[in-house]
Amino acid sequence: MEKLEALERLVDSLKRLPSVGSKSAERMAFALLDMSDDVIEEFSKSLLDVKKKIHPCPICGSLTEHDICSICSDERRDHSTILLVSSRKDVFVIEEVGEYKGLYHVLEGSISLTKGIGIDSLKIPELMSRIEKGNVKEVIIATNATIDGETTALYLHKLLSKYPLEVTRIAYGLPIGANLDYTDSLTLSKAIEGRRKI
Amino acid sequence: MEKLEALERLVDSLKRLPSVGSKSAERMAFALLDMSDDVIEEFSKSLLDVKKKIHPCPICGSLTEHDICSICSDERRDHSTILLVSSRKDVFVIEEVGEYKGLYHVLEGSISLTKGIGIDSLKIPELMSRIEKGNVKEVIIATNATIDGETTALYLHKLLSKYPLEVTRIAYGLPIGANLDYTDSLTLSKAIEGRRKI
Repeated sequence: MEKLEALERLVDSLKRLPSVGSKSAERMAFALLDMSDDVIEEFSKSLLDVKKKIHPCPICGSLTEHDICSICSDERRDHSTILLVSSRKDVFVIEEVGEYKGLYHVLEGSISLTKGIGIDSLKIPELMSRIEKGNVKEVIIATNATIDGETTALYLHKLLSKYPLEVTRIAYGLPIGANLDYTDSLTLSKAIEGRRKI
Repeated sequence: MEKLEALERLVDSLKRLPSVGSKSAERMAFALLDMSDDVIEEFSKSLLDVKKKIHPCPICGSLTEHDICSICSDERRDHSTILLVSSRKDVFVIEEVGEYKGLYHVLEGSISLTKGIGIDSLKIPELMSRIEKGNVKEVIIATNATIDGETTALYLHKLLSKYPLEVTRIAYGLPIGANLDYTDSLTLSKAIEGRRKI
């Protein structure tokens, strides 16, 4: 059968997407072939637009289409609190909840001993310079509840202890709707350790 | 938080891909943001190229970059046998095996009572005119082993019975490596019904 070079290139591009293997990429490519020209042109254009228009905020590292992101430039938000996250997507996740009213700082990764990611690749100097400006009263560490996230949180906690500010970690415990039966033992022990008066 | 219009458009495009929901589309969009400009440009271009360069073969309906596909134009293949499949992708799947040496005909769908897809939307007239040219000796029906695929196979079998040609259906049975224990009862009964001398 003839080699469909354009199709193979599309499959290769699709395979770069997270959790897309060869089989899924092929299925996607065939589905795209059946879509209208308009839909494909819009997809193609939106890929270029996203790279052209969106960039990280120079202050906090979250995504923006402006010079400074709408969170950092919002005077109504609490500029004395910074919440640390590993990835830009985490900012979206927390903003969707809509409860948090402070600022963010995206670390762009976690310390990982297994993947060989050290502190140098994280946006820690940028965090330091924000703290050294003196307005920050609390830093909330919201890295993942994984080994890498924990390692990062511990390191940051140590690093920030020299500053006169409160360093907190988001709570561990049972996710809402969770069944005790199905909760792993570490989560359970953390949930009991972190118990609060009702 | 500011509305990232370009990102939302990309997420909307990604959501059109098969088995991609909102969450996956968001995760993909963020992954794309972290990829290099070159990779994104190649992705964007391959989308347009695939639509521009690849089209269905006017004879059999499988994909080609030429006027007539490499299968239909291959004189070494058996032009007296046509294998019927529901989708273009099925041609690739069978060609990858590399055993079949005849021609194909893509029906572009299956009859579906639940989805309201009737015979009119299938490429049956095109099949008829190929058969009426008189060179075809066997038609192998290789629609899926699903209710829709079966309905289509039965209908086609009836339709083709008026022509002086052999109409066959690919075999049902245990997939290689399957365990009797885990095989559904319908497959088992079909496997027993279709037993062959060893």
